[in-house]
Amino acid sequence: MTTLNDRIKRDGIVVNESILKIDSFLNHQIDPLVISQIAEKLYDHYKETGVTKILTIEASGIAPALMTAQQFEVPMLFAKKATPSTLLEEQYKTDIHSYTKNITNSVIVSKEYLSQNDVVLIVDDFLASGQAAMGLIDLVKQAGAKVAGVGICVEKSFQGGREELEKMDVDVYSISRIASLKSNEVTFVEEARHE
Amino acid sequence: MTTLNDRIKRDGIVVNESILKIDSFLNHQIDPLVISQIAEKLYDHYKETGVTKILTIEASGIAPALMTAQQFEVPMLFAKKATPSTLLEEQYKTDIHSYTKNITNSVIVSKEYLSQNDVVLIVDDFLASGQAAMGLIDLVKQAGAKVAGVGICVEKSFQGGREELEKMDVDVYSISRIASLKSNEVTFVEEARHE
Repeated sequence: MTTLNDRIKRDGIVVNESILKIDSFLNHQIDPLVISQIAEKLYDHYKETGVTKILTIEASGIAPALMTAQQFEVPMLFAKKATPSTLLEEQYKTDIHSYTKNITNSVIVSKEYLSQNDVVLIVDDFLASGQAAMGLIDLVKQAGAKVAGVGICVEKSFQGGREELEKMDVDVYSISRIASLKSNEVTFVEEARHE
Repeated sequence: MTTLNDRIKRDGIVVNESILKIDSFLNHQIDPLVISQIAEKLYDHYKETGVTKILTIEASGIAPALMTAQQFEVPMLFAKKATPSTLLEEQYKTDIHSYTKNITNSVIVSKEYLSQNDVVLIVDDFLASGQAAMGLIDLVKQAGAKVAGVGICVEKSFQGGREELEKMDVDVYSISRIASLKSNEVTFVEEARHE
C-alpha cells in the first residue's frame, strides 16, 4: 500500500519553505483511495472516544471529513463562510485567520447540529498554525460539546499548530507530519512510523 | 431502505416556492449513508459510459462527487472560486451566476487535471436553473474532454435546468426530482419510480 508520505514525495510540489502543493490528490483533484485510507487511520486512532459527529470547514476539509464520518457511522458537519443571508439563523460563529491568504473569515455552523451531548472529532486537510482547528474548537465549545481530538491529513509540524492545540489539551493525530520544506525538499517527522 | 425522497419529506424545510432547505443531511450537516446511496445510483446509471473523472464545484458538491468517484475508482476534481493568487497558474475558467444569491462567480480548474482524453461525469447537490452545470460543462469543453452526463442529488424540475441541459444533448440523471414546492409542500416527479 502506498502511504500518504510516499504520495507526497511523488506528487507534492514544494512551492517555497512554507507551502506544499498537493493539488493532484488532496486539495483540488482528489484521489478517493488516498482519502479512504486516511479515514481508516483516523477511525483506528479515535474509535474508542465515543465520537458522535465529525466537524470540518469548507472546502478542502469536506472530503476527508466525509469519509471519516462514514467510518464512524455519524454525521459530518462543515463550517461555512458566513454570508449576510445566513445571519438571520441561529448559529455559532467564529473568526479564522489564514496566514497563507492573509485574510480573516467568519465561519458559522447552525446551532441545530451541535449540542452539549456531542463528542466531536475535528478533521481537516492541513494543519499549519492551527488557526482553522482553533476556530472549530471554539464552535464546539460554544455548543458545550466535547472535542475528541483533531485529525489531520498533512501536518506542517514546523508551523506550530500542534503545540498550540496541545497547550489546550487537545489530542492531535496527523497521518503525515512534515518536519521541513527547506531546500525544495519534503522531510517527514518520524518517517519510520508510517512505513 | 429510506429513499432520498423519503428523507426530503421527513427533514426538508420548504422555505418558499423556490427554496428547499436540506441542511440536516445534504448541504451543511451531511449523512454519509444518504450520500453513499446516491453515489451507488449514479454509478449504476453511468457505469457503461467510460467515465474517467468526476467534476463538481465547491463546496456542497464535494461530498456526493467524492463518493461517486469512489464507486468509479476515478479521481474527483472540484472547481474552485477564482482568487487573485490562483490567476498565475494555467487554468480553465468560467463564470457561474447564482440566481438564489444573485451573484456571479468565476470558477477555475487547473489545466493539469482535465484533458481531451477525459470522459467527465458532472455531479452536484442541486439542479435548479442549470447555471452551475452549464459552467462545469464549459470547463470540460475548454479541455476538449467529453461529458458523460450530469448526475444530480436533488433536481428542482420546475426551474428549467434539465431542459437547458437536454437542449445541449447532455444526459441528466437526478436521484430526486421535485415538481413543486407550492403550498409549503414538496411534490415529487414520478414518485413511484423511487419506491
